[in-house]
Amino acid sequence: MQDSLMNRLAELATVTDIPGQLTRLFLSPAHRRAIRLIEGWMADAGLDTHIDAIGNLVGRTKNSAGKPTLLLGSHIDTVRDAGAYDGNFGVLAAITAVKSLTGNLPYAIEIIAFGDEEGSRFPQTLSGSRAIAGKFDFGALATADAAGITMGDALQSFGCDAGAIPRIARNPAEILAYVELHIEQGPVLEANNLAVGIVTAINGATRLAVTLTGAAGHAGTVPMAMRRDALAAAAEQILFIQTHAAAIPNLVATVGALAIHPGAPNSIPGRATYSIDIRAPEDATRNQAVEAITTRLTAIAASRNIEISVTRSHDAAATKCAAWLQDQLADAILAQNLPVFHLPSGAGHDAMAIASLCPVGMLFTRCKGGISHTPAESITEADANIAVAVLLDFLRNFKKPESA
Amino acid sequence: MQDSLMNRLAELATVTDIPGQLTRLFLSPAHRRAIRLIEGWMADAGLDTHIDAIGNLVGRTKNSAGKPTLLLGSHIDTVRDAGAYDGNFGVLAAITAVKSLTGNLPYAIEIIAFGDEEGSRFPQTLSGSRAIAGKFDFGALATADAAGITMGDALQSFGCDAGAIPRIARNPAEILAYVELHIEQGPVLEANNLAVGIVTAINGATRLAVTLTGAAGHAGTVPMAMRRDALAAAAEQILFIQTHAAAIPNLVATVGALAIHPGAPNSIPGRATYSIDIRAPEDATRNQAVEAITTRLTAIAASRNIEISVTRSHDAAATKCAAWLQDQLADAILAQNLPVFHLPSGAGHDAMAIASLCPVGMLFTRCKGGISHTPAESITEADANIAVAVLLDFLRNFKKPESA
Repeated sequence: MQDSLMNRLAELATVTDIPGQLTRLFLSPAHRRAIRLIEGWMADAGLDTHIDAIGNLVGRTKNSAGKPTLLLGSHIDTVRDAGAYDGNFGVLAAITAVKSLTGNLPYAIEIIAFGDEEGSRFPQTLSGSRAIAGKFDFGALATADAAGITMGDALQSFGCDAGAIPRIARNPAEILAYVELHIEQGPVLEANNLAVGIVTAINGATRLAVTLTGAAGHAGTVPMAMRRDALAAAAEQILFIQTHAAAIPNLVATVGALAIHPGAPNSIPGRATYSIDIRAPEDATRNQAVEAITTRLTAIAASRNIEISVTRSHDAAATKCAAWLQDQLADAILAQNLPVFHLPSGAGHDAMAIASLCPVGMLFTRCKGGISHTPAESITEADANIAVAVLLDFLRNFKKPESA
Repeated sequence: MQDSLMNRLAELATVTDIPGQLTRLFLSPAHRRAIRLIEGWMADAGLDTHIDAIGNLVGRTKNSAGKPTLLLGSHIDTVRDAGAYDGNFGVLAAITAVKSLTGNLPYAIEIIAFGDEEGSRFPQTLSGSRAIAGKFDFGALATADAAGITMGDALQSFGCDAGAIPRIARNPAEILAYVELHIEQGPVLEANNLAVGIVTAINGATRLAVTLTGAAGHAGTVPMAMRRDALAAAAEQILFIQTHAAAIPNLVATVGALAIHPGAPNSIPGRATYSIDIRAPEDATRNQAVEAITTRLTAIAASRNIEISVTRSHDAAATKCAAWLQDQLADAILAQNLPVFHLPSGAGHDAMAIASLCPVGMLFTRCKGGISHTPAESITEADANIAVAVLLDFLRNFKKPESA
């Protein structure tokens, strides 16, 4: 019990670059210490380990050379002042499951602890999984962290040969699939009283930036009918965005940042700027929403004599989880006498990058209150054990169908 | 023409504490230079002048001791980076009108150039007019400017005896009325193609502070139906506030400041705070609006499972302009063959403070685009001359009715 999954998660959470909180940055001293710790657990589970050219820690089942390979994993970098489970849970749960496997598997397993999913250090995310998928952006090597150290220099100091990154890109013919366990980071499983759920897709996302220009004025001296109030226009628009999204299954739309000018209690706002984040598991759903929202926002602005600019600053397609992986995960859940539940992932994951290499699947574990990216992140030991049991059953029965 | 009202206004606008802009602070070197300049113009108009204990410049018609007194005036301090007309116009227009008076008036006139209406230097407004009305707040003497200089010390350096402030409070029995000319600072006269308008009341004002507390969350992982989005609630409320105010004549309501937390594009806002500024010429109208808005805001918050706090941070009653002064101003406007138009004042003025001493009246002059408190503030010479002509006719025929 001393070496339980929960204890390992707690021990790993002490490995930080900033004492008193969990902040573990890509290619940092804490990243190095985390790799050493996890290497030991991987070896204990019967895996051969190495650190690859982009700083991923890779553990592979022994004596499996030449076998088609199933990839498991998640990331071990964190956001600043993070929780203990985001990323780390997927890596350690996979190690725990693989340790329990016995006998000769018809396929190889590699567990990858990706070094950079969050992008907390350099202005780049998913560096580790992109490299494995052969989609690494080599321009990222020249980007620098807050101290001015480039990713290229940081890799060299870490003992990695950036020139070898192209060689860690996997051959799609040799990779069967990628399966990632992750905490949900949302409240849906908890609301449904479920320990685990099967991810249908990682939502595609569009980011819009809206600027409204009306006319500032004195809050006392301009009659209501003569105003061109940018915030009043924004209010009507934000209400529409919320109402529209709520009416469409699995669509979410969020106005998360908003600023007004001049921003004084006795001034009519002459300008408002805000962001819209729109996500859906189906690209068509998201694109239709972007169009409907843009059209309606433009009409609201026109009706109020307000100038509007809507720019699309970010666009990412949805990542579908393979149906056959969802089916095999469902079988493993049923084998635990648990109900099967499907949900989309609203947050991004390494599986997004790996999807260009092979079919991907994800299993979510309930987290308390849906809270993530804070020290309050929490999962129960019972749920963690259920997730491991599901993965173990999945691995025992895993077989890529001929048709896939 | 060299000494025209418009030329004097332009000359006075060069008297500033900050070169390159017009910023003239209470008891500053520029205030002193402005007094010297205006003293000369007052003397030229046949007035005896003195600086009183609170730094007001007072000019009184000669040989009028013991006569009942009509007060005219406005303020000569400015906001930072001000326009040339706010306050200054009312003082110089009165001097121009009084200079044209001939013969022996049955009453005395005092023109007062108040030194502190805006409160740009100390955290206190209307100091000059409050002292005249006997309502000076002596606690203000201990308040300090940005440099740490108290109002009391600044008065002493200016040559004023703060201990004599109680003695400048006028005896209501000796004061007939107070009449102030001012630029409108709003767009109503311009929209109605009018040079001048009669003020019915200075709006009462209520300031509310609203805090909404929902739950922050990840913009991707929390389904719309499970959200407690503080900004979405604020949007519905702001839209109600605007729609409600627009339906009630002479009521204005403004949400001018708004902040949300955490305020990131990928975060659901968990908290929103905003201000509401509500003004009306009738206190009953304003109080009914405050009640209706508070009730509806509370209902909107409850329907969204959002906690709400609404606090009343400021409350000022409306100041009625005396009907008989409005009537005599109307006669003077008709004598210029101009239409009579009434409007409320949305901004505050020295007349608010003087109203506790005597009946008050105000005449507004059209300003370009309704713009004020910026260097873009602008009036035409034709409009300025009309305002002076109206005031001159008013003064020639001024008589306080027995019933007043």
